[in-house]
Amino acid sequence: MTTPTTTSARRLHDPQARGFASDNYAGVHPEVLEAIALANGGHQVSYGADVYTEHLQDVFRAHFGGCATAYPVFNGTGANVVALQAVTERWQSVICTASAHIHVDECGAPEKMAGLKLLAVDAPLGKLTPELVDRQAWGFDDQHRAQPGVVSVTQSTELGTLYSVDEVAAIVEHAHGHGMVVHLDGARIANAAAALDVPLRAFTTDVGVDIVSFGGTKNGLMLGEAVVVLNPEAVRGMDYVRKSSMQLASKMRFVSAQFDSLLSGDLWLRNARHANDMARRLEVAVRAVPGVDVVRPVEANAVFAVLPPDVTERLQKLYPFYVWDEATGEVRWMTSFDTTEADVDSFAAALRVEMGGRGQESTA
Amino acid sequence: MTTPTTTSARRLHDPQARGFASDNYAGVHPEVLEAIALANGGHQVSYGADVYTEHLQDVFRAHFGGCATAYPVFNGTGANVVALQAVTERWQSVICTASAHIHVDECGAPEKMAGLKLLAVDAPLGKLTPELVDRQAWGFDDQHRAQPGVVSVTQSTELGTLYSVDEVAAIVEHAHGHGMVVHLDGARIANAAAALDVPLRAFTTDVGVDIVSFGGTKNGLMLGEAVVVLNPEAVRGMDYVRKSSMQLASKMRFVSAQFDSLLSGDLWLRNARHANDMARRLEVAVRAVPGVDVVRPVEANAVFAVLPPDVTERLQKLYPFYVWDEATGEVRWMTSFDTTEADVDSFAAALRVEMGGRGQESTA
Amino acid sequence: MTTPTTTSARRLHDPQARGFASDNYAGVHPEVLEAIALANGGHQVSYGADVYTEHLQDVFRAHFGGCATAYPVFNGTGANVVALQAVTERWQSVICTASAHIHVDECGAPEKMAGLKLLAVDAPLGKLTPELVDRQAWGFDDQHRAQPGVVSVTQSTELGTLYSVDEVAAIVEHAHGHGMVVHLDGARIANAAAALDVPLRAFTTDVGVDIVSFGGTKNGLMLGEAVVVLNPEAVRGMDYVRKSSMQLASKMRFVSAQFDSLLSGDLWLRNARHANDMARRLEVAVRAVPGVDVVRPVEANAVFAVLPPDVTERLQKLYPFYVWDEATGEVRWMTSFDTTEADVDSFAAALRVEMGGRGQESTA
Amino acid sequence: MTTPTTTSARRLHDPQARGFASDNYAGVHPEVLEAIALANGGHQVSYGADVYTEHLQDVFRAHFGGCATAYPVFNGTGANVVALQAVTERWQSVICTASAHIHVDECGAPEKMAGLKLLAVDAPLGKLTPELVDRQAWGFDDQHRAQPGVVSVTQSTELGTLYSVDEVAAIVEHAHGHGMVVHLDGARIANAAAALDVPLRAFTTDVGVDIVSFGGTKNGLMLGEAVVVLNPEAVRGMDYVRKSSMQLASKMRFVSAQFDSLLSGDLWLRNARHANDMARRLEVAVRAVPGVDVVRPVEANAVFAVLPPDVTERLQKLYPFYVWDEATGEVRWMTSFDTTEADVDSFAAALRVEMGGRGQESTA
Repeated sequence: MTTPTTTSARRLHDPQARGFASDNYAGVHPEVLEAIALANGGHQVSYGADVYTEHLQDVFRAHFGGCATAYPVFNGTGANVVALQAVTERWQSVICTASAHIHVDECGAPEKMAGLKLLAVDAPLGKLTPELVDRQAWGFDDQHRAQPGVVSVTQSTELGTLYSVDEVAAIVEHAHGHGMVVHLDGARIANAAAALDVPLRAFTTDVGVDIVSFGGTKNGLMLGEAVVVLNPEAVRGMDYVRKSSMQLASKMRFVSAQFDSLLSGDLWLRNARHANDMARRLEVAVRAVPGVDVVRPVEANAVFAVLPPDVTERLQKLYPFYVWDEATGEVRWMTSFDTTEADVDSFAAALRVEMGGRGQESTA
Repeated sequence: MTTPTTTSARRLHDPQARGFASDNYAGVHPEVLEAIALANGGHQVSYGADVYTEHLQDVFRAHFGGCATAYPVFNGTGANVVALQAVTERWQSVICTASAHIHVDECGAPEKMAGLKLLAVDAPLGKLTPELVDRQAWGFDDQHRAQPGVVSVTQSTELGTLYSVDEVAAIVEHAHGHGMVVHLDGARIANAAAALDVPLRAFTTDVGVDIVSFGGTKNGLMLGEAVVVLNPEAVRGMDYVRKSSMQLASKMRFVSAQFDSLLSGDLWLRNARHANDMARRLEVAVRAVPGVDVVRPVEANAVFAVLPPDVTERLQKLYPFYVWDEATGEVRWMTSFDTTEADVDSFAAALRVEMGGRGQESTA
Repeated sequence: MTTPTTTSARRLHDPQARGFASDNYAGVHPEVLEAIALANGGHQVSYGADVYTEHLQDVFRAHFGGCATAYPVFNGTGANVVALQAVTERWQSVICTASAHIHVDECGAPEKMAGLKLLAVDAPLGKLTPELVDRQAWGFDDQHRAQPGVVSVTQSTELGTLYSVDEVAAIVEHAHGHGMVVHLDGARIANAAAALDVPLRAFTTDVGVDIVSFGGTKNGLMLGEAVVVLNPEAVRGMDYVRKSSMQLASKMRFVSAQFDSLLSGDLWLRNARHANDMARRLEVAVRAVPGVDVVRPVEANAVFAVLPPDVTERLQKLYPFYVWDEATGEVRWMTSFDTTEADVDSFAAALRVEMGGRGQESTA
Repeated sequence: MTTPTTTSARRLHDPQARGFASDNYAGVHPEVLEAIALANGGHQVSYGADVYTEHLQDVFRAHFGGCATAYPVFNGTGANVVALQAVTERWQSVICTASAHIHVDECGAPEKMAGLKLLAVDAPLGKLTPELVDRQAWGFDDQHRAQPGVVSVTQSTELGTLYSVDEVAAIVEHAHGHGMVVHLDGARIANAAAALDVPLRAFTTDVGVDIVSFGGTKNGLMLGEAVVVLNPEAVRGMDYVRKSSMQLASKMRFVSAQFDSLLSGDLWLRNARHANDMARRLEVAVRAVPGVDVVRPVEANAVFAVLPPDVTERLQKLYPFYVWDEATGEVRWMTSFDTTEADVDSFAAALRVEMGGRGQESTA
């Protein structure tokens, strides 16, 4: 055996480089890393019977009420697919927006893994309404139609917008009236609560949402989401669904401890508020650049703007970010818990340089 | 908002408590934690396009040869189900032992998520042979039979035994002769290489295994497995299969950095050797206790013994471990990278106390 | 045992009653029944190895060319789901119209049974175009997107319209240019060929369509559809896919013999032409009723019209037909091989009576 | 268009040729054909809302009791997969024998289409017992185990044997005691009732079986099986499951009318008794041939015997039949409703000729 014998933990990247590509380009908040370290050492029961996961139930209940149960999973797609399976029969379908992550960014996992049809509705702001739900909420009792069983909303949305508490309440009331349950994809739920300045339960438990995919990763965790069951009557077989969906962590204490650090104190809120603040700062800064068109409301931690393609191309070499729509030249900038004011200001300055004298002409 | 404002990273458990329940009761090796910390800070491209994951390819190739490609995933079930999908058509089936993890411990995930039929063969030592494979390798070209497309072996096995290099080679040759590919479930592959005292490639790449589920979690990682494709001709759509199987980590650098720390140096081997050594020490110690019957060969890091039920019950209060077979009284003791000699000796002493004068009578 | 001992074949219905609800309300053409009777008696190999199914290959090849292979199945959903599975990888998706039968009338079977995501495009006339295809034909090589692998067109469409030969050719060329295959849902393919007055191969084989769901039931069979593979390079595992999709008939000779009677002579064409003729006659007759608004082009065997709800309600008591859209009052009338001129004329007369003096007012 | 214009219903086979390959090599009983013809003409509501299907409920209830509901489907695999889905949750599994049709002859359809794991138990006579069930009925409440939810028995079995009424009752009581439901695969249920000389309900409804796959095809239908729900509490979503499983016939009247002709009178019983009688005649005849070893009890319409390979080969040229086990030389002979005494006698005579003087030597 010629295997080398030295240890090799090492840094391969520049820990100062940041951009606006996605809140999952960011790393782990130091308090979360500390929690992982504290949870280490000794043996703990695997597969979720550890003290961290047990304790985590109290933590989630403090936020979501006494009926809530949290099931830690690995990632957002996993959380969504587990949640949707738990609230559906084999023959049901899910109403969502055409821009929903479950519809466009999960490589067909809901269909492939859960056999669920997604009934997508065009929604310019990424938000459903009772009226939009009704475009697909029909054909109940018709054996030819995959029965609409769930309305899935994303909060904050994939387009950086927010549902107000009342807007979610209206959807829930409407869905329940049709006998459908409501799933909230909360990959950025903390950003939503921070932006609305309400507790997490205000637009979930308190308005009757049945099940939540709670996002940890984009809020500063290394990795980890949780399916939070708010309405125990709405679900069946959570443990089996999680396991058979390959989302059961063996050393779960390390996922749960991260959530504990995030949610026992106010880390979740600090991180979310900061990201939101940076998005607003970015919006103000780029709106001040002549020729830059911010094309969607900036309500959480995303800014969407239309840029000339050549500007986009040059700017991406300085700061990573994504083109949202090749056809229109729309780009997306995300802020995260570790975005600094200096990052924003430097980026806006670079944008101004690249835009040059464009302001004179219209980019529309 | 009444959310508390203090941080709350905390330790809820006794970091000195250890038992023999499973190698996934153990925590994270300190060098792995250090690697996570070093990979933190700044932004890295998500979903696997980061420098750690890129670099990891070289690390795996150093072990498995220049054709190998590693796809980090979250857990063992995920690794197995991704690997099996990548090498099968929709109508194929998988030959494995009746004690295989994919058959008994994954809540039907291969069937449910991949639509694959498992063709299980009774194998007393947890090991297939060409003859045992042939009990299910028939009906090729018969449209009524889910076509056998994969032979899956586990190394080291679920029963703590090992395939020799020649034994794996014989199975591979036989499977390939039938047009089947070979998957190796290496949840404890490091223990196998350590016990056989051969490089990882000796019983994989070098004998023609097509695809491996490489286990990191039980070898000291916080979380992480990798699907290692050894034969690129045998797979299709790995990226899509991983994503649609909900096994694509967004902040993948933190999974890859763990593997880097494990495999760039000899940490994987130190951890595995130590666990194996502790199992042998445990075997010797418990064999010396009159009335304790070690019922399977101890070849890696597991010891199986038959105990009187009352002894098992009392001993479990002192040290967690699992009953393997209620009917026979067989129990399983696993050692891990953090098992100490003192742990073993104390456990054996406790066992001796609980057994009392039983040695005189037979436990059979 | 008190079971009665007499035979009990009996008629429970009025064999003269006909309506305009669907072409699958019709029965079996007498020549088809005769073929079933002739295929009876003696033993034939089951599961498709009979002489009728063997001979059927020549019959289909006479229509679709020498590379065609026909796989008889039970029903239209089965044909579609088998065809789509045979041309896709696990991670692919299917582009179709929002009104496609596979999208709205199969209770999610493509998603549930094949794991396929359907990417639906709004298409007012029920017809795709290269431009409409492009609304979903993007994200190739993006692991987050279920990869568009198939374009599925229906001919004649669910809205009673037709693709011209050139229109299908343009879609095929476009799809192939993207590396996608083309599936044609031909539940009413005979009506299309009859209406276009071209051979079946003109808008399938000759323009490069890869695979067809060939509809027999609506063309006068008792039951039976066939997956016709035109491009053998595009499919894998047809036999296994059909069997595992529960579409393999054991006494297949009786499905194949029906197709033989339909396709060896011109029965398929006679039936289709007649149904189309009756639709045109119906269109003319109802357009002559003041206040009746025919709202879609009548190109095959369907007529869509808008009626006042009370008229619809009364008329349905006389002749079964379906309301297509509750919101707009649109109804659908289908003609079939057994629709008579008298049926059409009586229906139009009844409609005129029910409409009363409505013609004076607008129904829009 | 050069399509020929003559009708082409024709006979391609010898209606006098019969063998012993399978009861699905036989054709359609004349009374069934007559029923199809009587059900023809006029329009009937499609997809099961026709008068034949409505009436069929009374027919099935006369056999299975007032709580029974029958759902006609196309074939046996379809019936089984629909039935199993209707009584299971997504995470459950099915206990069956290793020789069960669902396990070995459905190309993995239960796994692939329903995501169900089959837990197979070796059962020499093809029959489960409470003790054999218990080999797999464990791990309840363990999230790692696909939860046993169904016990599936086949009556008569794939090995030509029968469960007594008491044997089924014992399994049902045992299964229910574990919270499992019982599915009876009755592909040859008529043969079982005939052989046991009891009503159909004696070993189904009356002993608590929850759901039955009722076989029509092998009992003389052209095509058609029915899922018969005996315990309405045990199922969910039957209509949706049938449709999404591609088993909903559009012109269902023609499937239901066949069943009506079979079950309203005693045709089912006449056909089954005759087939059973022919099997017994065959058994007696071949046992009289020196050297022929009948190796399984002949209790329904199958005879299993061991022959020298060269005899098998020559005999198959005269009469089609299947080799059951290449390794042992075991062959299977099935009789059907249309097997004649002359068929049996001629076959036995031919066997005697081919065996020649073999009787002197042992064939074991």
